[in-house]
Amino acid sequence: MPQNKRYIYVNAFEGLPKLTDFELITEDVPSLQSNEVLCEALYFSVDPYMRAHSNWMTEGQTMIGTQVAKIVESAHDKFPVGSLLFGDFGWQLYTVCNPGVTHSCFDRRSPQLLSDLNHFPASLSLGVLGMPGNLAYCGLLEVCKPETGEVVVVSGAGGAIGSIVGQIAKIKGCKVVGIVGSEEKMAWIQDELGFDAAINYKTSNVAEALQEAVPEGVDCYFDNVGGETSSAVIAQMNMHGRVACCGAIAIYNEDGNLPSKVTPIQLPIIAKELKIEGITGRRFAKRADESFKVLTKWLVEGKLHYKETVYGGFEKLPEALISILKGENLGKAIVRA
Amino acid sequence: MPQNKRYIYVNAFEGLPKLTDFELITEDVPSLQSNEVLCEALYFSVDPYMRAHSNWMTEGQTMIGTQVAKIVESAHDKFPVGSLLFGDFGWQLYTVCNPGVTHSCFDRRSPQLLSDLNHFPASLSLGVLGMPGNLAYCGLLEVCKPETGEVVVVSGAGGAIGSIVGQIAKIKGCKVVGIVGSEEKMAWIQDELGFDAAINYKTSNVAEALQEAVPEGVDCYFDNVGGETSSAVIAQMNMHGRVACCGAIAIYNEDGNLPSKVTPIQLPIIAKELKIEGITGRRFAKRADESFKVLTKWLVEGKLHYKETVYGGFEKLPEALISILKGENLGKAIVRA
Repeated sequence: MPQNKRYIYVNAFEGLPKLTDFELITEDVPSLQSNEVLCEALYFSVDPYMRAHSNWMTEGQTMIGTQVAKIVESAHDKFPVGSLLFGDFGWQLYTVCNPGVTHSCFDRRSPQLLSDLNHFPASLSLGVLGMPGNLAYCGLLEVCKPETGEVVVVSGAGGAIGSIVGQIAKIKGCKVVGIVGSEEKMAWIQDELGFDAAINYKTSNVAEALQEAVPEGVDCYFDNVGGETSSAVIAQMNMHGRVACCGAIAIYNEDGNLPSKVTPIQLPIIAKELKIEGITGRRFAKRADESFKVLTKWLVEGKLHYKETVYGGFEKLPEALISILKGENLGKAIVRA
Repeated sequence: MPQNKRYIYVNAFEGLPKLTDFELITEDVPSLQSNEVLCEALYFSVDPYMRAHSNWMTEGQTMIGTQVAKIVESAHDKFPVGSLLFGDFGWQLYTVCNPGVTHSCFDRRSPQLLSDLNHFPASLSLGVLGMPGNLAYCGLLEVCKPETGEVVVVSGAGGAIGSIVGQIAKIKGCKVVGIVGSEEKMAWIQDELGFDAAINYKTSNVAEALQEAVPEGVDCYFDNVGGETSSAVIAQMNMHGRVACCGAIAIYNEDGNLPSKVTPIQLPIIAKELKIEGITGRRFAKRADESFKVLTKWLVEGKLHYKETVYGGFEKLPEALISILKGENLGKAIVRA
């Protein structure tokens, strides 16, 4: 049997995670029991939610996360060798499990055989054809409900979810503004993804730039960042605007009890009768088949584009997480095992 | 004809309004034209929204506000002398208008003949049997959707809207916590209105007091205050909690562009998949008949109680507004002309 490698979450994060918050261990892989399979990781998803989720993690546990893995040994009829699985296996190279029952670092779902990806790379099932794509699709359409001609603002627009949200809003006939943190991301979302405008929150005053880009105001806001950027956007929303709160990367790295204070959002919420909803992957899991079909179709038709930032090698996982929390990735961040 | 008295909004509010922000003028009342009536104010409503609404007011205009008035002269068949009207006439003692057409300091509705108040005082049509009651009823039931046994927290619980919200939540079988700013209000909402617990935000740490009162967490939050109190409540909400943002009196008196910063609420919004909606009187106007009927029934049955803080005399209007913005009123604030 091969040796397993596994990352343990050893120190509670304080601010931005550090390499020393993780410990790499090497261990024997156990032999298979009846109905078990041995999975070898191919791709790991690295996502901002991992920082937020650390509030529910305990030191000493395997670091959480999802992966695409290949079955390399099988004692289960329905899961033959060679099949690809999506699993909540955490940061480990080899996993032994019975895929017919829950085996999840989040304690909520069993591994899933990958859908036919229509010749697209398997890693997309961690991105545009997986949870991030589903959240973008359902969050935008079910919570923001954009109408043709409305203004949609997306923060974290250069990330895995934001880049998809903005493109779907364009497909739906909206005017789309993306908020990002680098010139490279600005160029990508405008020149390649077709956003109507881009704002670099690091070099611009978001309120002023937004006023200039969309003086008619904002109808929908898909929020991946939280913090002062969100206060600025929400202050410029129109009557009956809709906000989907999907992420708050701007405040994840702060002490959970004492994040930096921000301008309150209650005045525009009341005056404009806004609706704001928090969304996570859980909520829309039941619509995964629908979003998968539509997003695949748009990919095939060339209406939807994606980008992956790939970090090479299992041992790069901690570095990759730190990198995306600094906003260094373009599109979906993946660690190739 | 009598002389009219009218308050002009002469200085834009900075912080808490001052008596010198208003100028009292005396003027002749014009003679009636065809279809016009002369209305004499009986009761004025004084509400926190007036401070927030100043962002849309211009210096030199009549101060905004609603009143109950009696028709003392009439040249309109359908509006005979002696009838009582609800009108957006602003802070003036006499109003000449054609009640069949819009005549509103808010430019949105025409005066309404009062419904039969079932022997309750006419001033209730500015409180529990008017907009505040309707907002409490519809906001709680349509936005917060409390289920029997759930925990409902109400801020501004000693005010015109909050005191009604908490009682409706009790009628619906909820556990109700009110947040107020004085011992007198605590005693009133617990001993007379039947709230299960009360927290004085001026003398307690709201987060700790809430944790103690409802360790099971908060399902519904009806917010009349905004500010740090709301951040503390929202941080303790349960999965799929619902928040109605109805008022933000804690921040109305701050400079509109630079209110004090508060703890951001995006982390609990996302993690708990909360839904937050801003509500104003406009939204539920179409359900006014329904709420009027139900609230009247509850008043008659003794299930619902109200209190009015009455300030005597037209000239007390500025003082009354300043007083309620300091939280000095118990229940609905009224100025009797």
